[in-house]
Amino acid sequence: MTARLPVVESASIVDPRTASTAQVPAPPGGWRGLIETYRRYLPVTDSTPVVTLHEGNTPLIPVPSVADRIGRGVKVYVKYDGLNPTGSFKDRGMTMAVTKAKEAGAKAVICASTGNTSAAAAAYARRGGLKAFVLIPDGYVALGKLAQALLYGAEVLAIRGNFDRALELVRQMANDYPITLVNSVNPYRLQGQKTAAFEVVDALGDAPDWLCVPVGNAGNITAYWMGFCEYHQEQRCQRLPRMMGFQAAGSAPLVVGRPVLDPHTIATAIRIGKPASWDKALAVRDASQGGFEAVTDEEILEAYQLLAGEEGVFCEPASAASVAGLLKVRDQVPAGATVVCVLTGNGLKDPDTALKTSQNQYHQGIEPELAAVAQAMGF
Amino acid sequence: MTARLPVVESASIVDPRTASTAQVPAPPGGWRGLIETYRRYLPVTDSTPVVTLHEGNTPLIPVPSVADRIGRGVKVYVKYDGLNPTGSFKDRGMTMAVTKAKEAGAKAVICASTGNTSAAAAAYARRGGLKAFVLIPDGYVALGKLAQALLYGAEVLAIRGNFDRALELVRQMANDYPITLVNSVNPYRLQGQKTAAFEVVDALGDAPDWLCVPVGNAGNITAYWMGFCEYHQEQRCQRLPRMMGFQAAGSAPLVVGRPVLDPHTIATAIRIGKPASWDKALAVRDASQGGFEAVTDEEILEAYQLLAGEEGVFCEPASAASVAGLLKVRDQVPAGATVVCVLTGNGLKDPDTALKTSQNQYHQGIEPELAAVAQAMGF
Repeated sequence: MTARLPVVESASIVDPRTASTAQVPAPPGGWRGLIETYRRYLPVTDSTPVVTLHEGNTPLIPVPSVADRIGRGVKVYVKYDGLNPTGSFKDRGMTMAVTKAKEAGAKAVICASTGNTSAAAAAYARRGGLKAFVLIPDGYVALGKLAQALLYGAEVLAIRGNFDRALELVRQMANDYPITLVNSVNPYRLQGQKTAAFEVVDALGDAPDWLCVPVGNAGNITAYWMGFCEYHQEQRCQRLPRMMGFQAAGSAPLVVGRPVLDPHTIATAIRIGKPASWDKALAVRDASQGGFEAVTDEEILEAYQLLAGEEGVFCEPASAASVAGLLKVRDQVPAGATVVCVLTGNGLKDPDTALKTSQNQYHQGIEPELAAVAQAMGF
Repeated sequence: MTARLPVVESASIVDPRTASTAQVPAPPGGWRGLIETYRRYLPVTDSTPVVTLHEGNTPLIPVPSVADRIGRGVKVYVKYDGLNPTGSFKDRGMTMAVTKAKEAGAKAVICASTGNTSAAAAAYARRGGLKAFVLIPDGYVALGKLAQALLYGAEVLAIRGNFDRALELVRQMANDYPITLVNSVNPYRLQGQKTAAFEVVDALGDAPDWLCVPVGNAGNITAYWMGFCEYHQEQRCQRLPRMMGFQAAGSAPLVVGRPVLDPHTIATAIRIGKPASWDKALAVRDASQGGFEAVTDEEILEAYQLLAGEEGVFCEPASAASVAGLLKVRDQVPAGATVVCVLTGNGLKDPDTALKTSQNQYHQGIEPELAAVAQAMGF
């Protein structure tokens, strides 16, 4: 791992996998993934080769200890999208993006990402029999962050250049070769992501009064709004929510109104200084009478620990921004309102933060006797 | 963290959490967890205080590349129980165990475990407003393995003794104090776990011909069989599966017919030399005309990589024992059979193994030019 490779020979666009010929039908009674479930709302036809890991169908979990902190009969739920197959909401977009890539005849997908996007891209690409390439700057990221994408079979290429250069190169590769770009510019990703709004309405019986969502690239807040609006047009819901977007204070371009050149926050999944869906996010805010607010890293970690320690829900730090934000503006929530906070990723993605924030619960050197144990436990 | 604490003061049986008073009803249209869904098959009443994270409802995913390796029209699915709230099938048992503990008036739960059980115990205990204690031998485990349980709010007590002594102490504590033991001896855990069989039948429309399951303590194979038999008695399924249990070769007491004093395998979740449900497991094998087989660590890792790299499904190494075993005895599978392999845990629990098995896909030092990137990608 430490040696630099002068020539790279193992990667190849010719997929060594023997094309699967076995026909294993989807279980007739089970959840078949979001494309099959919401097919009529998505850009697919009967001949589209659906690539699915049966993503979506994630639980909407009541969080009374958050509601308690607001009071006035407010009901709060978390949409726990960390229970998607690769551990984040990115799967919703990637099932669509890879399905459409395969339909278009692409042999590979490519992205510049070190996080949830690369894991989802790799999993769905391999599931669909495509190759997956991830471009990153050399030395940019600890290899552990890429463990998941690597195990899914992604080829990770670290270039001697910065992240902007990596982005330029993936665009060029997608332009010149039969490779589909699955970064956030891929339009099908928002199509898949909008199904989370459908699931929220299907579970609640209507849209919530407020939807709180962490905002990095601003794709997810845009996609949720699309979903609510489409359901509303078809009278699947009677109301539309106020869309509340929460950014980390050190990375809050939509709050300060200009790009942030050096974004910083512990919530790495939303550490983005120039959101790709900037204009769309502003339109969503205005149309929904919503708003953007910033939350500090301390507030994020507090919500992160509250969710795990009082509700048993383990999310990524970035996900907790939605709950931190809700608590920050709690006085604005109408009495009796129903609020949904989106938890975008699984806490297992970031064990280091979990450990750092809870070491004081670890007690060593206890005598192996009943009395000593009972005392240590507070009896 | 390195200092030993002469006196432990922070742990206390008095829960500092303000008891939640907010009423946040379960979403009327969503999945409400396995107790609500399968209530009539479980030992609960209308007044039982259900503690749930909306566990269960995990996908049953077709894996054609596994089926391909068997041929003869065999259909293979994986039951991906790593998508439970804390990342393993233990949640199924723990929702029942903690619900019944709360119903019985317990103020805390306790277990001796360093893995999935401690995480699930902590999450459900905190969800239910109970404390969670985990006893382990001092120096027994890397702290990282406990990150999840710690973040959920478990108090982890490391004793100056071995694992057997820890087990004795948790039994004594549960006997002498208002604490419920949630190790595998807790009978409610199998009750919850049996619901996985219900979900398999509900998805397929009948029981599979074969069920393949990794076997450590042998609780899960016992619970699945209970579930299939109960559904069969009610004619919810027309057949019963052959139950095939797979153990790691270095930790295969049920295969060799005697306890293994020094069990060893990379599949830590099934590294158990003396299964708690030994007799039950033998009875399941006989009643179902099933069998036990051992798979080597190499076979386990091969299946682990196959699932991730060709199907996009990331499981714990121990989980892959079910697929490794199926492939090992593939010639015994009847033509056209339907086979379900149980994947017990999420691969995100063990990023180290993911990284170790896929480093050759990481290519460094690539010139940031289109031609160099294209060449590295095999164009």
